[in-house]
Order: sequence, then structure tokens, then C-alpha cells
Amino acid sequence: MKSQISSALSDFFFEYETPRQVLVRNRRVGVVCRLIQLGVLAYIIGWVFIYEKGYQSSDTAVSSVFSKMKGVGYTNVNGAERVWDVADYVFPPQGDSSFVVMTNYIITEGQKMGTCPELQGKANCTKDADCEGGSFKRTGHGQLTGVCVPANKTCEVLAWCPVENDHNIPDPPLLMSAENYTLFIKNSVTFPLFQVTRSNLVEGIDSSYIRKCLHDPEKAPLCPIFKLGDIVKLSGFNFETIAKEGGAIGIVVDWTCNLDVDIKHCKPKYNFHGLYGNPGETDKARASVGYNFRYAKHYLDGSVQKRTLLKVFGIRIDIIVQSLARKFDIIPTLTAIGSGVGIFGVATVVCDLVLLYLLPKREFYKNMKFKYTDTQAQDPDSEAGSSETEASKK
Amino acid sequence: MKSQISSALSDFFFEYETPRQVLVRNRRVGVVCRLIQLGVLAYIIGWVFIYEKGYQSSDTAVSSVFSKMKGVGYTNVNGAERVWDVADYVFPPQGDSSFVVMTNYIITEGQKMGTCPELQGKANCTKDADCEGGSFKRTGHGQLTGVCVPANKTCEVLAWCPVENDHNIPDPPLLMSAENYTLFIKNSVTFPLFQVTRSNLVEGIDSSYIRKCLHDPEKAPLCPIFKLGDIVKLSGFNFETIAKEGGAIGIVVDWTCNLDVDIKHCKPKYNFHGLYGNPGETDKARASVGYNFRYAKHYLDGSVQKRTLLKVFGIRIDIIVQSLARKFDIIPTLTAIGSGVGIFGVATVVCDLVLLYLLPKREFYKNMKFKYTDTQAQDPDSEAGSSETEASKK
Amino acid sequence: MKSQISSALSDFFFEYETPRQVLVRNRRVGVVCRLIQLGVLAYIIGWVFIYEKGYQSSDTAVSSVFSKMKGVGYTNVNGAERVWDVADYVFPPQGDSSFVVMTNYIITEGQKMGTCPELQGKANCTKDADCEGGSFKRTGHGQLTGVCVPANKTCEVLAWCPVENDHNIPDPPLLMSAENYTLFIKNSVTFPLFQVTRSNLVEGIDSSYIRKCLHDPEKAPLCPIFKLGDIVKLSGFNFETIAKEGGAIGIVVDWTCNLDVDIKHCKPKYNFHGLYGNPGETDKARASVGYNFRYAKHYLDGSVQKRTLLKVFGIRIDIIVQSLARKFDIIPTLTAIGSGVGIFGVATVVCDLVLLYLLPKREFYKNMKFKYTDTQAQDPDSEAGSSETEASKK
Repeated sequence: MKSQISSALSDFFFEYETPRQVLVRNRRVGVVCRLIQLGVLAYIIGWVFIYEKGYQSSDTAVSSVFSKMKGVGYTNVNGAERVWDVADYVFPPQGDSSFVVMTNYIITEGQKMGTCPELQGKANCTKDADCEGGSFKRTGHGQLTGVCVPANKTCEVLAWCPVENDHNIPDPPLLMSAENYTLFIKNSVTFPLFQVTRSNLVEGIDSSYIRKCLHDPEKAPLCPIFKLGDIVKLSGFNFETIAKEGGAIGIVVDWTCNLDVDIKHCKPKYNFHGLYGNPGETDKARASVGYNFRYAKHYLDGSVQKRTLLKVFGIRIDIIVQSLARKFDIIPTLTAIGSGVGIFGVATVVCDLVLLYLLPKREFYKNMKFKYTDTQAQDPDSEAGSSETEASKK
Repeated sequence: MKSQISSALSDFFFEYETPRQVLVRNRRVGVVCRLIQLGVLAYIIGWVFIYEKGYQSSDTAVSSVFSKMKGVGYTNVNGAERVWDVADYVFPPQGDSSFVVMTNYIITEGQKMGTCPELQGKANCTKDADCEGGSFKRTGHGQLTGVCVPANKTCEVLAWCPVENDHNIPDPPLLMSAENYTLFIKNSVTFPLFQVTRSNLVEGIDSSYIRKCLHDPEKAPLCPIFKLGDIVKLSGFNFETIAKEGGAIGIVVDWTCNLDVDIKHCKPKYNFHGLYGNPGETDKARASVGYNFRYAKHYLDGSVQKRTLLKVFGIRIDIIVQSLARKFDIIPTLTAIGSGVGIFGVATVVCDLVLLYLLPKREFYKNMKFKYTDTQAQDPDSEAGSSETEASKK
Repeated sequence: MKSQISSALSDFFFEYETPRQVLVRNRRVGVVCRLIQLGVLAYIIGWVFIYEKGYQSSDTAVSSVFSKMKGVGYTNVNGAERVWDVADYVFPPQGDSSFVVMTNYIITEGQKMGTCPELQGKANCTKDADCEGGSFKRTGHGQLTGVCVPANKTCEVLAWCPVENDHNIPDPPLLMSAENYTLFIKNSVTFPLFQVTRSNLVEGIDSSYIRKCLHDPEKAPLCPIFKLGDIVKLSGFNFETIAKEGGAIGIVVDWTCNLDVDIKHCKPKYNFHGLYGNPGETDKARASVGYNFRYAKHYLDGSVQKRTLLKVFGIRIDIIVQSLARKFDIIPTLTAIGSGVGIFGVATVVCDLVLLYLLPKREFYKNMKFKYTDTQAQDPDSEAGSSETEASKK
């Protein structure tokens, strides 16, 4: 028994199987098949390996973004001068990756809880019966009291009074000076699979450079300080248009890194594109234009709770980190090779079809390639094959 | 030398190798193997190509979400009527993809910095020694002063006084009217690999449609305006339950697109599911129920800094964009084909095992298939094979 | 015609092709080739299947995070005692996955809109001509009025006055007590491909456990309550350093799940790492240190709008959910097998090269393996092959 196993093992180890092949010496078939095989080889090496880098595995990053605006805005409304600093025009204040820079606003000061006529157009009426007490209009400002105010021809509502009138958006936008604000982006990415961490303050971007640089796609592509006006322009908007009604802009920080080369070539690229109110949008898609939200500041006047309501029109900036790192890995390499060998097999199948079905001497090649295990079903001209079969039967 | 190379090249180009094969004419083996091969073929074509669309490459999107609530809430607490508008009940105000809609609250007005007794249950005492001055209780409201207040049987603390009492949550929730608020979602997605940008305001969703539509899974699946009550119901919650203690709901905007067909079929699907306080959760997982946070409004009363503290219970809505676009690509197609040919090879191996080890005529087939390079180790019955070998030796 | 088709079909079904092979009985070739083949097999089984789990498909999760801080801070600035509770020190208040815990601040109280001298160093001047009226300094506080204030040697600005002086950051940080704050994380993940939903309150983490536990990497790795001081320490920072100027810390909740085993083994792991101001950073990368933002509280003093400006230094915490679930799937399994068979083919090619080009008896093996279709180009010693060819010609 033991000797049987060891003999089987030695058989296994000292033997080697290799397929027997026919070497067809035919110019037409040879050229066609070699070209197909070379094509497959070129595809595997050129496309899969070199172009698509099939020998690398890829990973996306875990990222963290911190943003900081700088700059002061100035408004002069009916002679009342005031300035707006970061604490006034950025929402939310804490430097998130998504925030809004106020560029225009409608202010309603001194609102207090009470009853007052609704805005014209929201709840028109001619008599009290038109105003159902206790009900709400979907886009109204408050609860209907059931009284019609004849002077305004609108229902009376329980609301923060006086109600906001947003029919006229200030034009030109009040904070055109927002164009000169600057945005500083701090971004760190970690590729967990490759244990690599990078910051957008790459080699050469030190504190003295940051103090004086300003991002420019050609001259300073790595400077992380952006002028708001530049961001708007690069994303295809007109500043005055977007500043008036608001809009959304995406800043894509693109980390496409080949980690097989030195890590210092792994640098961010900044792209800008309009998310809403894109000037390239067709009209039908403009179902909802602009970007605005309401914000209230509460205070106590004497003992009365009051609030200042701001309808803020602004530029919403979404800092989106897009990342793809690639590095040599044995698994995808071997998978690509294995799959390439498979495709090579397809090339052989195609050539065999040509050889066995299209050539004039196809029957001859068929006999060369195949050996039959019995003779009943054979054609008369497959003699050679059957001769072998007979030989094996004797 | 030169002629040698050119002859080698011409040899290479005019020759073609194809494996020699045995054509086994045996019903049993034939049927078994053909079935196995057909099964593999059916798997490759049917499953990999048609069902899993293995001929396509896939990409996930970079997305941007903007949300806007509308509607007015009304409360009447002890006769004090007031309404709540968007600026009052949405946190944060600027229309993020994640926000909280207040549905219930505990208000503590007129808090000012000072000393007062701690809430009952937080720091019980009978004498001053029970209250270590300068220390903090983990869930307490302030710093212990070291004095025990006999009337309350709790320690005195330096805190915003009076301290908030959140033992009783208003029931029914104060802002049941939140059920009628509406949410408008604006979402744009970009598939960077395919250079495709889509907005959830797809073809046919224009401004006149938006003005009057309301999302309904059957009747208006593409309308981007949702009633809060519907969202809660579709995610499996009961509105009054979630409104009382708060909860979190995910709105998944699902972009699963086949970009091989017309782009207009790339439409979002909206799904709703409870994230916390899910009614389907088992009891043990309910370690922490509800959703609440504290929020303060500061004001100056005379020259004293005061604040109004709100413990806000609300529905947190997370708008989650899930995206997968697929498009024909030559690489995955060829990889799938190559890998399929490989699996075909596995089928051949299985059939060979049947042929060579299970059939009664296995020795015959073995001799047909194999040609031996020497005779020492051969069995007597492998004559046929050796006859060929001998022939090649002569 | 019909009979022809049925005969072709029966031919197809009752026939089976298998490649003819040469069984080379040569110790050297046998051992080399078997070792190569075993190596490939070991690679496919050991590496692709067992180590990389190539038989599984993978999915990343859609997740939702809710955070809640607890704890009270205490400051005593020039004898003015006050406490800071959650509503005072967390920005934003609503429990997002990214938030800032204030640890230090510069407060500027009673600012009102007006003119005052700029901060020293921001806009130095000796005479009015140095201050261009109507212009702005990029990092200044307001709009220059065109007047030089000789006492300060700085230009006068229209701004929130008095302007903030942030030259001296309080040291030690005012809110060192932040070290004892606790953070509670609630996280739910859904793997859409596998229809699996998990919460970080896994089996055994019930409400009684949560009430008393505190996260510890060794003793309580699943407790979702973290001491801020521990988070800072585990991420490699020194608390006093980070508290002074601020910094950013990432809490990675890692869900790496093998769904082929029981779902209860799918548990989160918590990792902490510094995102900015990382102590391991080299000096050149420290272009921008710390983390701070400005925040204003507005109030009405008499009838004058005033604000309290806070420059907040704090620890920004980003809760990052990283997820990868794997489960058995037939497609990757068969793709891996198919690709493995392809790599096996590569092994055969390598062995053939050894056999046909390196061995002394290579011509003999060549003749065994190949059968030639014509005789013109053959060497004299390829007799055996040609004998077969001649046979097929007769």
C-alpha cells in the first residue's frame, strides 16, 4: 500500500503533461492567426496593463476638510453703512466642507409674535368667510385668524409680524464685495489600504507661501487660497447673476495618485463646477433657481421677544473630495494575466474555426487535429485519423 | 544571421499551432460533457453578462443635496399662542442634507449665570459634606458649590439658573402640526467616469409641476416635494410616537442607472427607512431612544446676560445619495470572457476525470489521449501508446 | 434537411473533444513543472481564496451618525466665574457627525458698528495718505475710512468696534476641564447589497451597560461613550497643546464584517487619529496650525445692535464611518477560479518553454508534441513527426 502511494507520488512528480499540437504550415492561416494573437497580446499588455494599469489595486480615501473664509463686506442701504465680517456672512460658522457665503439678503427687523395681514398674493380675500380661522396656507407665514383685512385684501394671520415681504430681491446684490473674499481649504486624505496620509499642504506649500499666494489654475495650481470671484468664474457663472439669487458651486479636490511612484507626486487638483443654476442648464430644468434660506436673530426689546429675520441669498460651496490611489498588487496582476490567457484561448478558438470550416483543405486539417475513437460515423477521407485509431486497437 | 532571423520570423508568421484533440464518440461521456459545457456557457452568458451585466464598468457619483422645508407650526401652551416658522424649527437653517425638524421641546426661559439647587435626582444630599465643592457630576448642570439646599435635598450648583427640568416630556408633542410641513429636495449627481450629470428635477419635472405636486410612491414617484407625515409613515414610524421623543429617518435617493440606454431613463428612486427608534428594533437594542439636543438663544436683560434654553426633540432627516451607474466597457467584457474561457477549461478537466477514471473503457481513452515518452514505467495494457512512442524512436 | 440537423445535433451531443497530451517522463521537467503548478495552485487557493477571500463579493455601507456630548466646563477669568454647558461649547448643537468642542476662546464683548482704529500690525500708518479710504485689507477687520489715528499708528476702520485683539491666546487654555467631557456616538450602518443593518449598540450593549461604561481600547472596546481626554490621548495628541490652539481628530468607526459567519460578529472598531496639527507632522507641513473660527451672539442694548464676538479654539471631531462587508458570492468565486485556470495555462507555457528550448532532448520532445502538416521545412531529425504526416497523406 505504502509503496503504491509512493509510486503514485513519484509518477505524479516525474511526469509532465503537455498538449500535443499540430503545427499547421499554411501562410494564410498562419498570418491570420498570428495577427489575432498579436492583437490580443497588444490589448492585454497595452490596454489592460499600461493604459488601465490592471496590475494595480485601487483604494478611495477617508478625508477631512476644513474651510476658512476671510474678507470684509460693506453695504450702504439708504445711507446706513455697515460692514459684514466672517461671523456675519458664513453659515455655519465652524468651517465645514459645505457652507454658504451670503451675497444678498432681505432683512425684516423687529418681528414679534402677533396678528397682522398676510403678504399680498399669499391669502387673498374680500370677506372674513374667505379666511378659514385656524387653517394654514402651505407657503403662508402663519395661522389664519379668520379675519379679512379690507385695506390689504388679505387674511389676517397669527405670525411673526410684520410678515416678510420678499417680492423684490435687491438688485444689484447688496454684497457685491463678496467677490474679493478669500477661501482657505485644508484637506487631509488617508488611503487606509495603503496606509498613506496626505495633506493638501504638500511639499513646498509652507506658511510663507500661503501668506502671499492666490490660487490660479495655471500659475499657482497648488495654492489652497481661492478668491470667491475666481471660484465663481471658473465654475462658469457670472458673479452678479449668482450673487443676486444664490447658487451652488462644487469645489472638487481630486486626488488621483499612482503610489508606485514617489509619494510627492500625489498632489491635489482643484476643479470647480456649478451644481445648481448652472448657466449651461436648459430652461426646462430650471424648475427651481437660486439658493436661499431664512435665518433669525432673536432678542429681547424691553420684555418683548423680537427677532430679526434674514432671507439669505448666497453661494453655497460644497468641497467634495474625490480620490483614487493605485498601487501595484499581485492579485489584480495575476487576475489580469489569467484573464488574458483566457482571451488568448478565444483567439485559438477563432483560428480553429477558420482552419476547420473555411479553408479548402479543411478536411485534411480536421484529420490532423482530431483522432476518432471509433469509425462508424467517419467520412471516407478521414483515413489518416482512423489509421491511428486502428493502430491503437490492435 | 540576417537570413536566419527572417526565416525564423517567416516560420513564426506562416505557422500556426492548434492542439490535437481526441474526438470521443461515447454517448454517456458526450452527453455529460456537453451538458456541463452548455451549463458553463449558459452561466457565462445568462448570469455574468445578462443578469449581472458583466460587460459594463460601474461608477458611483459625486453628489450635492439641498433641502428646503416649508410650513408653519402652531402651539398653544397655557393660552400663549405662537407660531413656528422655518427659521424657528429647522436646525441648521441653511438647507443641508442632514437636518432636524423640531417636533417637541422643553423650554427654560430666563436662565442666568448663578447658583441654584441642582435638579432632583442629579445630586442628592442631606448635608453640605455630600456636596464636594468644585466637583462636577457627569450628567449634572454645573459645578457644585459645596452647599446642600435642605428644601430641595440637592446640592447647590454654579450653573445657568434655574436649571432645566426635563423629567416630563410634553405629551402629546407640542408641534403635532409638523405633520403637514413639506420638504423639497434638490439633488444633483455627477458620475465622473462617464462624464454624466443628472438632477432629480428630471425631464417633465418643471416649475409648474413642482408648484402643485406632492410625492406619492405610486402616483408621483418623481415629485421632489414630500409631506413630513408621509415620510414618517413610509419609514414605518407612527408620527405621534416619533414626534414626542424624536428619531432619525434616512431618505435614500437611489440613482441606479444603466447608461447604455437613453439618459432620460436615469431617474432617482426615493426610499425611506428609520435609522433610530425603528419600530422593528428589538427591545434590547433600544439602549438609547429618541433624538434630542439642546440649543440656547442668548440675550441681554438690562445688563444681565440671559439665555433661553430649548431642549429640542425632533425628527432628524438624513438625505443619503446612493448611486451606481453602469456602462459598456471593453475591459470588464474581455475580463469576463477570458475568465469564462477559464471556467470552460474547468469543465474540460471535470469531463477528462470522468473519461479517464470513471468509464469502463478508461484505459482505452487514456491511451488515446496520452502519448508516452518512454516505456519503463508503463503498464502492459498501455501498448497502443507505446507503439507510437516506439515509432517515434526508430 | 431535418435528418441532417438531427444528425448534426446527435453528433454534437454524443461526441466529446479532449486535447491529446504527451506524457513526458522526465524527472527534471516533471519536478520543475509540478512545483510550478503546485505553486500556482497554492497561490490560487491560499492567497486568492483564503487570504483575500476572493470567493466573496464586497459592499460598503450607507451610514448615519448621531453624537451627543455631556459635561460641564468651568472658567474663572479675573474672578468672574461661569460654567459652560453643552449648549455653550458644542458647534453645531444638533449632534452631527462633525462638530467642534470649544476648549479655548478670545471674547470681545459689546461690539457695535462704528469707526475705531484697526488692530496694530494690520494697517500701520503715519499719516492719512497711508490709509486709502474705501479700501480693505485682506485680513483686516473693516473698511478704511481714510483717517490715520496717530495714537495707535493705525488706520481708522468702519467695523464692529472695538476690533478683536487676538494677539494673545490664553495659555493655559480656559476650558481645560473639557478633558472630562464625554461623547456618546450612535451609529447605524446598512449594507444595501446584503440587506443587513447594524447599529453600534450591538448585542450586550444595553441601556444599563451604557449608563456606567466608558470606552477603553482593551477593557471596553464596544462601549460607545468616550472621554474627550482619552480620544485626544489615543490620537497621539497632548491635551493641553491641542486645547490651546485647537486641532482636528478623526474617530474612525470601522465596520469590517464577514457576513458568512454569524451577524453578531459584525462589530465596530473605534480608531482615533489626528487630522491636523498631528504631533507626527514634520515642521514644513505645519503651514497652518490649530483650528479656530469666529462666532457672534447678537443682542440689542437699548436700541443699539451689539454683538459678542467669540474666537473659538476647539477640537474638531470628525466621526468617519469606514465599512466593508464581504459575503460569499458565486460570481467572484467563478471569476477567481476561471482566472486561476488561466494562470495555470501560464504555468504550462513556462514548462513547455523549458521542455522545448532548454532540455538536451528538446528535439525529441518537439517531435512528440508537434505534428507537422508538410515536410518541406523540416529538419532531418524530425522524422517521427513526418512519418505521421506521410501516413496522413497516403
